[in-house]
Amino acid sequence: MDSTNHQEKIQYHFPLQDYISNEKFEKIKSFSERKETPFLLIDLNIIKGKFLELQKRLPFSKIYYAIKANPLPEVLTLLKELGSNFDIASIQELDLVLGLGISPDRVTYGNTIKKSKHIKYAYDKGVRIFASDSEEDLINISENAPGSKVFFRILADNTSADWPLSKKFGAHLDLIFNLVVKCKEKGMEPYGLSFHVGSQQRDVGQWESALSKCSSLFNLLEEEKGIKLKMINLGGGLPSHYNYPIGSIEEYSKEIERYLHDYFGDELPEIFIEPGRSIVGDSGIIISEVVLVSSKTKMDKSRWVYLDIGKFGGLMETLDELIKYPIYTEKTGDAREVILAGPTCDSMDILYEKYKYLMPETLSVGDKVYFFTTGAYTQSYSSISFNGFPPLKAYILPEDIN
Amino acid sequence: MDSTNHQEKIQYHFPLQDYISNEKFEKIKSFSERKETPFLLIDLNIIKGKFLELQKRLPFSKIYYAIKANPLPEVLTLLKELGSNFDIASIQELDLVLGLGISPDRVTYGNTIKKSKHIKYAYDKGVRIFASDSEEDLINISENAPGSKVFFRILADNTSADWPLSKKFGAHLDLIFNLVVKCKEKGMEPYGLSFHVGSQQRDVGQWESALSKCSSLFNLLEEEKGIKLKMINLGGGLPSHYNYPIGSIEEYSKEIERYLHDYFGDELPEIFIEPGRSIVGDSGIIISEVVLVSSKTKMDKSRWVYLDIGKFGGLMETLDELIKYPIYTEKTGDAREVILAGPTCDSMDILYEKYKYLMPETLSVGDKVYFFTTGAYTQSYSSISFNGFPPLKAYILPEDIN
Repeated sequence: MDSTNHQEKIQYHFPLQDYISNEKFEKIKSFSERKETPFLLIDLNIIKGKFLELQKRLPFSKIYYAIKANPLPEVLTLLKELGSNFDIASIQELDLVLGLGISPDRVTYGNTIKKSKHIKYAYDKGVRIFASDSEEDLINISENAPGSKVFFRILADNTSADWPLSKKFGAHLDLIFNLVVKCKEKGMEPYGLSFHVGSQQRDVGQWESALSKCSSLFNLLEEEKGIKLKMINLGGGLPSHYNYPIGSIEEYSKEIERYLHDYFGDELPEIFIEPGRSIVGDSGIIISEVVLVSSKTKMDKSRWVYLDIGKFGGLMETLDELIKYPIYTEKTGDAREVILAGPTCDSMDILYEKYKYLMPETLSVGDKVYFFTTGAYTQSYSSISFNGFPPLKAYILPEDIN
Repeated sequence: MDSTNHQEKIQYHFPLQDYISNEKFEKIKSFSERKETPFLLIDLNIIKGKFLELQKRLPFSKIYYAIKANPLPEVLTLLKELGSNFDIASIQELDLVLGLGISPDRVTYGNTIKKSKHIKYAYDKGVRIFASDSEEDLINISENAPGSKVFFRILADNTSADWPLSKKFGAHLDLIFNLVVKCKEKGMEPYGLSFHVGSQQRDVGQWESALSKCSSLFNLLEEEKGIKLKMINLGGGLPSHYNYPIGSIEEYSKEIERYLHDYFGDELPEIFIEPGRSIVGDSGIIISEVVLVSSKTKMDKSRWVYLDIGKFGGLMETLDELIKYPIYTEKTGDAREVILAGPTCDSMDILYEKYKYLMPETLSVGDKVYFFTTGAYTQSYSSISFNGFPPLKAYILPEDIN
């Protein structure tokens, strides 16, 4: 029996109920009926639930939502009402939150790469907490945001994160030690340490590794320089529910809390957390349509499925096939391996080629294809007009769809 | 002597005069003075020169400019006035050219991935030439654009192209043979064959390989089915001037013309060509600014240079470090290897890390950094608001800057 025959005997199966109830799915279909694909649907109730869950599980922490994950005004307004704080990556994000009536004392400027004039802009608007990981940036902060609080980002090990972050941000401990000392010399407040274990981090043990580094540096700074840092920023990294089982927020937070007490004892420093993906990821469904299904040669059994959404239309995190979205169609039938590609004339616009999704053999032109867990890092990534295609549209689900 | 010391003895050198005259560069600097970086400057004179050169070197060919390379209205208007035809990838691109008063008989719909309703839309607007590479798409064309001309895209070998295109588009010859036959049966005109040797193709011999396939299929179809195809579409692939020497348009076109006569004799079929990058690539300069220069550890000699433009702000073709732009700064001094990265909080937003650019040791915050040869596939790729950063701005250089 060859592998093709074997493959044909597998029935296409997608555990829809792991992502959504049948009833809600029907409501979503009816809400979507006359909308032109592709588009993103955002469910604010899920975001609310995720925020409250995180608050409940890590009650000792102050949540700074990472706006970049999903900057839709409705999302920010909801999180504002729930009492969230906000981490910005740019002054445009600052303008966005201030425009929604969010006070600047609820904002951290967490991007370690920023222009002097942008530091000044944020300072003038009232931002007083900045991240840094280099002497050059620290001097810029001291000159443009005098007296501010600064937290320093240490290099973290990012293995086992689906979207690793290690290389570009953070610095080694010896450098951070010197930065903290310099920060004080410059009349600012060396406030704490931050790290980021990588986005969609599957191994909770990575937090322990980072916290042990933080703890050493806390001790060293106090012993050698008499500097007492006050804050630990746990960064992001908590996962969304992609196409494999993950630990629950409860499991992650229990472990993280245990590590915190292991390294900092009973009296914890102030704890910040910067969730993005874990708050909004599960809230999004992208609805797309099959444009074409074809085979490249007569003998080729693996089929090309071209969709009306691709890498440059909002699915940028399929880069190197890193994030694997749960992808569903209502069609049924024998399962076939497919290569999933976008609609542009760019051959980089292939979503999954090495990793083979199974789709029903019956899948054909015009069928709807649902990408679950697409609430984070999708719409804001989309190109303004690559190949003439417009950026991804987004809709907020009405309150009564639940 | 270790490699670090060795490296420090190399003086930073960039052959500016290979890309621009000193006089013109000074004019561009003065034009750019009060503009906020990053931005793209487009020189219409260069585009005009490239178009006329191509027309002169391949006088027997009909030029269909691939709009996706640079869809700025000023670029399209110039090419319209020069007599160019246009290849579209989407109905949005069609609307764009029709809005500029370009007649639909100057338009081909070259994307083989298209919705039925988009085929109908284009047909209703007057488009009569479509590309195809699958039976599914061909049937859609027959139903929505009856009687149209169809050209078929064959799979081409793309090795030695800097931006390969092989996998996603085109089909093998046996499949194309059947499509041509079916096209006729469906009452349409099987018009010709197309291929694409890959964008920025360094090896002109790839055109020979593709043309030999076309010639075989022309003959086979005539002998076996009495179908006489009329047209060969040479696609794109002619290079722009990145950071290595390339053959001239003259050299490429001489070889391509020779191959054409080798395979089609004295009486050539109609020849289409779909240049994009080779028309607009050299016309663009992106001007950016150094946001930060830092080292990750005390011992690390390779420096991180963070710019205010990155992968998601218009330099998407640095994906996998495929396209290597000529990058210039006016600073001088000892050369140091750098890692070039963009301003977003995404560690995928690194431009060049494996391939080490040499920059002067004196490079510092606020210095201007010039990316030459950025007229193609830059602005239209940029994200709408990733990390809050706006899409890349573009300016057309005034007539008197030459």
